[in-house]
Amino acid sequence: MLQLIGFDGDDTLWHSQDYYDAAQAEFERIVGAYIDLADARVHERLLAIETGNIGLFGYGAKGMTLSMIEAAYDVTCGRISAADLHRLVGLGKEVLAHPVELLPGIREAVEAVATTYRVVLITKGDLIHQQAKVVRSHLADLFHRIEIVTEKDPHAYARVLRECEVPPGAFAMVGNSLRSDIAPVVQLGGWGIYMPYHSTWSLEMDTAFSAEDARVVQVTDARGIPEAVALLDRTAATP
Amino acid sequence: MLQLIGFDGDDTLWHSQDYYDAAQAEFERIVGAYIDLADARVHERLLAIETGNIGLFGYGAKGMTLSMIEAAYDVTCGRISAADLHRLVGLGKEVLAHPVELLPGIREAVEAVATTYRVVLITKGDLIHQQAKVVRSHLADLFHRIEIVTEKDPHAYARVLRECEVPPGAFAMVGNSLRSDIAPVVQLGGWGIYMPYHSTWSLEMDTAFSAEDARVVQVTDARGIPEAVALLDRTAATP
Repeated sequence: MLQLIGFDGDDTLWHSQDYYDAAQAEFERIVGAYIDLADARVHERLLAIETGNIGLFGYGAKGMTLSMIEAAYDVTCGRISAADLHRLVGLGKEVLAHPVELLPGIREAVEAVATTYRVVLITKGDLIHQQAKVVRSHLADLFHRIEIVTEKDPHAYARVLRECEVPPGAFAMVGNSLRSDIAPVVQLGGWGIYMPYHSTWSLEMDTAFSAEDARVVQVTDARGIPEAVALLDRTAATP
Repeated sequence: MLQLIGFDGDDTLWHSQDYYDAAQAEFERIVGAYIDLADARVHERLLAIETGNIGLFGYGAKGMTLSMIEAAYDVTCGRISAADLHRLVGLGKEVLAHPVELLPGIREAVEAVATTYRVVLITKGDLIHQQAKVVRSHLADLFHRIEIVTEKDPHAYARVLRECEVPPGAFAMVGNSLRSDIAPVVQLGGWGIYMPYHSTWSLEMDTAFSAEDARVVQVTDARGIPEAVALLDRTAATP
C-alpha cells in the first residue's frame, strides 16, 4: 500500500516551461537579426551547448542564460553586439523573477492526497530559484518535506526514500516528465502518475520510457490526481 | 556538552575565494582596456551589482558571471566588445570547473572531531557546484549529513539543528566567515570556531560581530580545530 506521494514542481505544481519558451523565442528574435535561424540550425546549436553545459551549470535559468550568451556569440560568429548579449542577461532575470502561477486544481489535489498520505515536493534546478518558487506558491505548508536536487535520477529518489524510511513500492510520484519524474521511480519499483504539460523542453524528451507502463496512470489535469493515487494504492495492495 | 560540530565548505574545507579573486582580477583587466578602473569605481560598481542581484541569483559562480557581464556593459557604457563579454562566460566556467584543493590538515581535523561528535557540512551557494566540490573533496563519507543552503542565517541553522534534534547549545560551527558561519550560530545560543582565510569576499565582511565573543575560539589553521572543539565542550559543560 502507498505511504508517500511525491510531487514535481515545475509544470506540475506551477507553470514554468512557458517562461523558458518565451525566453527562447526572444533569443531567436535577437540572433535572427544577424543570421538565418534555420540555415544556422540555431535551435539545435543552442540545445547542444545547453546539453554540454548541464554537468557544469545544472538545470535552471542562470545556466540557460550563460548558454544563450555562448550560443549567440557562436552562431553569429561573433557578429552579435554587446548590447544584444547584455539583453540576454535581462531575459534570464525575467525568467528568475516571473510570478508563480499554479496549475488549475493543483492545490486542491495536493490537499486531498495529503489527508491520506505523506506528501513530499521533489524538484530539480537552481536552489535559490526553486526555493523562491516554493515560497511564492504558498504550497510549502502542505508538504512534509521539500527536496531540491540537481538531477532526478534513481540515485536521488532512492536517497529521499531512504531518508523518509519508505520502501520504493510504497511511493508514487506525480509529474509531467517521463524522464525525470516517472521512469526513475518505476525503475526503483515505485509508481507514477503522469500528467503531461502542453510544452516539454527537448532535453526532458530524451527517454525511451512509455507511459503505457503498468505501474503508471496518466491524468489529463490535477483533478484526476487523487483518484489516480487511489487506483495505484489498490493496485499496490494487490499481491 | 557539545553533540554536533558543523563545518563550512568554501575556504574552510577547500580553497575557493582565490578562484573568485582571480576571476575578478581578470574581469578588471578586461574592462580596464576600455576605462580607468579607479575613475570608474569598477570594484565598487561590480560589488553593488552583485549585491543587488544576490536575492535573484543567490551566491556562486553563475550569478557572479551574470553580474560581471552586467557590470562590464554598465561601466564601459556599452563600449565593451561582444568578444570580451563572451570571455566573461569562460571565466565563470573556469571557477565552476576548478579542482578542489583541501586546506592543510583539514581532513585530519574532521576525522579527529568525528571520533567524538557527529559532524555536518553546512555550505551555501550553487547546488550543483557545491555538490561537485563535495564529491571532488573526497570528504563526503566523513560527514553524517551535508546541507547546501541559499543563505547561512539563524533560520537555516535552526532548521538543520531541529532536523538533527540537537539544541543550539550543543552545536559548534567551524568556519572562515564571521557573518555566515559564526554570528548566526552564536545568536542562536551555539558556539563558534573561527578560522580566518587569507582572503574574504567584501560581502562576507558585512558584519558587526567580533571574534572576541566569549562563545568563539579563533584558530590559525585546521590543526587547532580539535583542541578548540574540546575547549568549547568543556566551557559548554560548565554551568
